[in-house]
Amino acid sequence: MKKEAIAHPNIAVIKYWGKRDVRLNLPAVSSLSLTLSQFHTHTIVEWGSLRDHFVLNNEEMQDKQAQKVFSFLDRIDPNRPYCKVISDNNFPTAAGLASSASAFAALALAGSAASGQNRSLDEISILARQGSGSACRSLWGGWVEWKKGERSDGLDSHGVQIATKSHWDLRLIVAVVSDKKKLISSTKGMLQTANTSPMYDAWVQTAQEDVNTGRRAILNKDLDALGEAMEHSTLKMYSTMFTTKPAIRYWKPQSIAIMQEVERLRKSEISCWFTMDAGPNVKILCHTKDAEQVAESIGKHTSIVHILEAGGDAVIL
Amino acid sequence: MKKEAIAHPNIAVIKYWGKRDVRLNLPAVSSLSLTLSQFHTHTIVEWGSLRDHFVLNNEEMQDKQAQKVFSFLDRIDPNRPYCKVISDNNFPTAAGLASSASAFAALALAGSAASGQNRSLDEISILARQGSGSACRSLWGGWVEWKKGERSDGLDSHGVQIATKSHWDLRLIVAVVSDKKKLISSTKGMLQTANTSPMYDAWVQTAQEDVNTGRRAILNKDLDALGEAMEHSTLKMYSTMFTTKPAIRYWKPQSIAIMQEVERLRKSEISCWFTMDAGPNVKILCHTKDAEQVAESIGKHTSIVHILEAGGDAVIL
Repeated sequence: MKKEAIAHPNIAVIKYWGKRDVRLNLPAVSSLSLTLSQFHTHTIVEWGSLRDHFVLNNEEMQDKQAQKVFSFLDRIDPNRPYCKVISDNNFPTAAGLASSASAFAALALAGSAASGQNRSLDEISILARQGSGSACRSLWGGWVEWKKGERSDGLDSHGVQIATKSHWDLRLIVAVVSDKKKLISSTKGMLQTANTSPMYDAWVQTAQEDVNTGRRAILNKDLDALGEAMEHSTLKMYSTMFTTKPAIRYWKPQSIAIMQEVERLRKSEISCWFTMDAGPNVKILCHTKDAEQVAESIGKHTSIVHILEAGGDAVIL
Repeated sequence: MKKEAIAHPNIAVIKYWGKRDVRLNLPAVSSLSLTLSQFHTHTIVEWGSLRDHFVLNNEEMQDKQAQKVFSFLDRIDPNRPYCKVISDNNFPTAAGLASSASAFAALALAGSAASGQNRSLDEISILARQGSGSACRSLWGGWVEWKKGERSDGLDSHGVQIATKSHWDLRLIVAVVSDKKKLISSTKGMLQTANTSPMYDAWVQTAQEDVNTGRRAILNKDLDALGEAMEHSTLKMYSTMFTTKPAIRYWKPQSIAIMQEVERLRKSEISCWFTMDAGPNVKILCHTKDAEQVAESIGKHTSIVHILEAGGDAVIL
């Protein structure tokens, strides 16, 4: 069986940081995200092959990345035959967007279909989560909540769509400050944070409040309320990173310059709000009507600026 | 009676942020500081005058600043006569150093002497604290601990010298990023933090550990240990600021560039460590032998760099 799927990356507006179970990628906190259009991962899985193959962007991979893909296929079916996986991202890794979310969402979808299994979308989201936590949010378009869940087997920890891509006319602007690989992986950073930051407990304890505020703001289309919760969630996440031993500091001078620019734009009555992830790039949420002006202002600080729309569901082609 | 005194500013190496009593300036946490040479406030207090006068840097002040000085004299003696206070800072306000520490230390010392009262240095430190918290550390040279104390009257909350200025051959480099008045006063920032940051409790609960580590490192002359504790204390303090509502963000792009420069210098085997206060300027602690090189590297990011030595006790002239 040969199946192909497409999935889009997503950006958390209420952040995910910290795991309650590392092996199953169960999060310590719930999160909320926006799935992005324009960019996607396209993946073909062919069930049955002479040996395992993983071809990424036309290049046969042999490294740890390939191993991760093959192990992931083992989760789909422990008794699987050898498989061939061909995956392409239509966006540069320099785009400042983690490609692992769209990658594992597309792989879970195509792999499940190719294996002939009949899984529900929730089950595929649970599967994708085990490849990369945030991938569980990329199964759906628009606005998605990832519930942290309570179960130790993780069966209640998956994405839930709370609004479709056409719900709200917003843009997400991605300001790329650096395209270098991050200095410390998210998983390692999360573990170090949980083990050494005195702020970690407060982060975990107050995250649900931000998810509730964010969900309400999305449903009410209240950008100021969502933006405030998003920046607060982002800065809380960074606070746990700054206070680990040794400190994790992803910010660069330009990151601060862009945050200051966002603040200046707000003073001139443009509702725009920043978020960041485990790296120095800055993402800004604003109304579609303001997107060009915001992008132009941000463009004073970096030459790579993407204006992205809300994207749709992951799909089998 | 007319008396004059000199006091030096100080920089906290383990930070003070948060008050357990606003009126008496009682801190929520203990702190450790280094008193600085070269810069000082020189203050003359003349007890008995036709009306209250406050002349700062040759200019008669009439504003809130003058009122604060006169109220402070009322604390020295509620039945005092009118007084004349003449104060001069030999350092520009653009130096990036809070002048209120040296100002209230010198005023407490000269004012007490001019009033004919016979107060101990501890009592003068307690008095200075009520003018500006960190002033209680400027009565002594070298390394000073400000114990938070337990008493509600604050009589156990004052500076204690733990090592003299000649104890350790270090330099403090001040990198001035901005000489503008800070956007939000420390007192207001501290209150907002205590009221709204979910990280505030962890900050208060873990501060004593940093003071203990810092004190030990100073006594052992272990710059790496002191530097690590200083950066951790600084980043924890900022974490409480970032997570207040609304967020307090004093950092500027250059602040980050200088922090990164410090990290680069450390990678080339130079022990140097940053701290910051309620503003964007960065202070760097290093061995005297490395000071010129560190200052030169930092000079790539700002044109105003001061190399300061450990200073001595506040004195009556």
